[in-house]
Amino acid sequence: MKKGITKRSEDFSRWYTDVIIKARLADYSPVKGCMVIRPNGYALWEKMQSYLDMMFKETGHENAYFPLLIPESFLEKEAEHVEGFAPECAVVTHGGGKKLEEPLVIRPTSETIIWAMFKKWIMSYRDLPLLINQWCNVLRWEMRTRLFLRTTEFLWQEGHTAHATAEEAEEETLQMLNVYQTFAQEYAAIPVIPGRKSDREKFAGALHTYTIEALMQDGKALQAGTSHNLGQNFARAFDVTFQDQNGEQQLVYATSWGMSTRMIGALIMTHGDDQGLVLPPKMAPLSVVFIPIFKGKEGHGEILEFIDQIAASLDGDITHRVDAREEYTPGWKFNEWERAGVPIRVEVGPRDLKQGEVVVVRRDTREKANLAKDKVKEKIRELLDEIQTSLFQRALRFRQENTMRVDDYQTFREVVAEQGGFLHANWCGDPKCEDQVKQDTKATIRCIPIESEDEDGVCVLCGKPSGDRIYFAKAY
Amino acid sequence: MKKGITKRSEDFSRWYTDVIIKARLADYSPVKGCMVIRPNGYALWEKMQSYLDMMFKETGHENAYFPLLIPESFLEKEAEHVEGFAPECAVVTHGGGKKLEEPLVIRPTSETIIWAMFKKWIMSYRDLPLLINQWCNVLRWEMRTRLFLRTTEFLWQEGHTAHATAEEAEEETLQMLNVYQTFAQEYAAIPVIPGRKSDREKFAGALHTYTIEALMQDGKALQAGTSHNLGQNFARAFDVTFQDQNGEQQLVYATSWGMSTRMIGALIMTHGDDQGLVLPPKMAPLSVVFIPIFKGKEGHGEILEFIDQIAASLDGDITHRVDAREEYTPGWKFNEWERAGVPIRVEVGPRDLKQGEVVVVRRDTREKANLAKDKVKEKIRELLDEIQTSLFQRALRFRQENTMRVDDYQTFREVVAEQGGFLHANWCGDPKCEDQVKQDTKATIRCIPIESEDEDGVCVLCGKPSGDRIYFAKAY
Repeated sequence: MKKGITKRSEDFSRWYTDVIIKARLADYSPVKGCMVIRPNGYALWEKMQSYLDMMFKETGHENAYFPLLIPESFLEKEAEHVEGFAPECAVVTHGGGKKLEEPLVIRPTSETIIWAMFKKWIMSYRDLPLLINQWCNVLRWEMRTRLFLRTTEFLWQEGHTAHATAEEAEEETLQMLNVYQTFAQEYAAIPVIPGRKSDREKFAGALHTYTIEALMQDGKALQAGTSHNLGQNFARAFDVTFQDQNGEQQLVYATSWGMSTRMIGALIMTHGDDQGLVLPPKMAPLSVVFIPIFKGKEGHGEILEFIDQIAASLDGDITHRVDAREEYTPGWKFNEWERAGVPIRVEVGPRDLKQGEVVVVRRDTREKANLAKDKVKEKIRELLDEIQTSLFQRALRFRQENTMRVDDYQTFREVVAEQGGFLHANWCGDPKCEDQVKQDTKATIRCIPIESEDEDGVCVLCGKPSGDRIYFAKAY
Repeated sequence: MKKGITKRSEDFSRWYTDVIIKARLADYSPVKGCMVIRPNGYALWEKMQSYLDMMFKETGHENAYFPLLIPESFLEKEAEHVEGFAPECAVVTHGGGKKLEEPLVIRPTSETIIWAMFKKWIMSYRDLPLLINQWCNVLRWEMRTRLFLRTTEFLWQEGHTAHATAEEAEEETLQMLNVYQTFAQEYAAIPVIPGRKSDREKFAGALHTYTIEALMQDGKALQAGTSHNLGQNFARAFDVTFQDQNGEQQLVYATSWGMSTRMIGALIMTHGDDQGLVLPPKMAPLSVVFIPIFKGKEGHGEILEFIDQIAASLDGDITHRVDAREEYTPGWKFNEWERAGVPIRVEVGPRDLKQGEVVVVRRDTREKANLAKDKVKEKIRELLDEIQTSLFQRALRFRQENTMRVDDYQTFREVVAEQGGFLHANWCGDPKCEDQVKQDTKATIRCIPIESEDEDGVCVLCGKPSGDRIYFAKAY
């Protein structure tokens, strides 16, 4: 196994894999397309879960659990849905030593099984809205997989809601997009552009799909979360009606929305550097690591005692660890904790002890500062806030610098080929232009932004009038 | 749908299902053998998860995630393991529209895939102990299923640890059994007997299995959690060795341990009554429900304001809800919240308001008491503690009253047939006697208790000398 981490400038894709393997976030498994999420990676998922789950509950959603296996015939009830998902399904044909009468697919997403249950539970307007979320694993057979970004099995949450009116469903769809944006920006420190997907890119079975789109350091976009307005498509497929306040039967309106372990890939590729992972403090399972610098065999106890006093003074919500292992050098430990992305390192050697101070090192900028012992508590709190803000600002600046307004197709093609990033260009709305752009450049429509500038112009490809300046990019 | 809940004395099994359906804990799904866990049931699982996860972390374990799908050949590497689990497996034969070269089974438990990874991660004694836990779904094809107790798919946690010595592995196995006992008794208020399984009843692939056994209200036992000392069986099967401190290669020692959604079944059958669910306060997602008693159209606002003041005075960790729905009568609400098992109900009517007091009703004993407004905060806290203790004591008393010391086989058979419960009897240790008892009575050895009385006697069946008085029962 090679020792270092490939430089980003050398090979971004290898850098990404190196960081994951060296920081022990995940590992390849012997099962094709499936990964193992190791404790360091799973701790990031637990952080994600805790924030998202809190926000889901604050907006009135409850968690539930539906079966992993779905009868094949259920998928077929919604025409677009089966067309989109059937080719990616894993199929169970045998159970308990016998061939099954009807094959079962492993859920690629749960709309069908959930709407089969909603039919049992929804009778009247009093049963609405029904606001459900599920934390689970799903499976989509993938040809080309990549740790966290695209794996055959992945972990996610999928929200599924039922409403009495189209307006309520649309409101819910946008509300949950907003929750995802809040999580991405305020916790993961990843700036995102919220917008609508083109019809070509929407969820199979949706009226329309909203997305948040982020930009990675290699100039490729990443879809970080999606929220779908499903209209009455699934209610129609599963015959789910309710009696309204006038006693009449109406079809129910639906939404679904999901965010997955893919987001951990976004976290790595937004903030990481050539030394490894860089974690925004709100996502870091460990905020501060203390490293004693032992010189010779004497005085270890005093240094550790000094560190313990400081550690004990920190606010209760600041997770910390003292790395007092004797078998590793301080330099080795610096590397290890940098690689793991811990936001702050505190070093204490014999001279620091004598002077009653410590050395504090930021992971993001690698700046060092000497600090008196009694200032540490306050300074750490301050620094964590500062790192959180500064990582977001840095990523936002990167995105701004890599978003190009383009008005002619020649430039468009050059920018995609040479520098990547977001292309902010007009589009006439015709799927043919969308397909042509994709064929020529591999760039796709990432989203039609919600906060559009409503700027009249002409389609960057065909030159027809267009009221929408939208975002194109090559994407993960 | 019939309205009431069947009485326990009438049909315990129907009572159990009625409680689950009426309290909306779970529902049948259209997928054979699989259930849907509804929000009220899932909230109990979340409570379980939070306590167990905390205890796992306190004892040094980290969470990780391994693939759902396991190559069939992996299962075959441990002879007893494959014999035990292969007949229960669901098999994936097709993925992405193609037939797979090697079928994949859906994990019935994860020893094999985890030990395939441990082989990559364990090199030296420095990598040990390795203490991993996984929260996930598993699948075991079941012929006769029952909500929560036995379903084809279920949710659980499975701990998997690797150790340098046999002693350490045994210590870990017992430590985790102890964690399960603590959870069962201190949180779920279910008294359990910790003990060892007979060889016939141990986990497929284990050296030996420890269990905690609970007694349900119908006199049947329920295995509530198990912890296995796997010895070197899986290390041998997957060739996992480590270099010890003397530079020699040694096989690694293993444990695994699991607790599942089955525990929710135990919770229902231990504490429930003819009105529905009864929840120990530490497991209750909702501790207190306030119900205003409106008389006529006037004065609703004053009552709600009075309730809000009291609710706001409660300690922050006491979850509460005001059920102010106008479309339901107080009596209807009493039934609904009793069925749901909420530990305390607080009623406030116009007369209470005038006298500055409330009526407090315990769910477990259904005792009512009038209470001055300014005493509520303190009394609720006290009552919750009292209910928690009293439910445990009641269940313990029930178990004591339904545990019979038996020294002859005639009585043994009569007790099993007529009253059930635990039979505390001597056993010679011969599997033949074990089989005969099972055949004659359907009772099985539940466990050989850890705190044995070391009482010499003779086997209740064959009359040979026996040093162990152990527990038999019919079981779920």
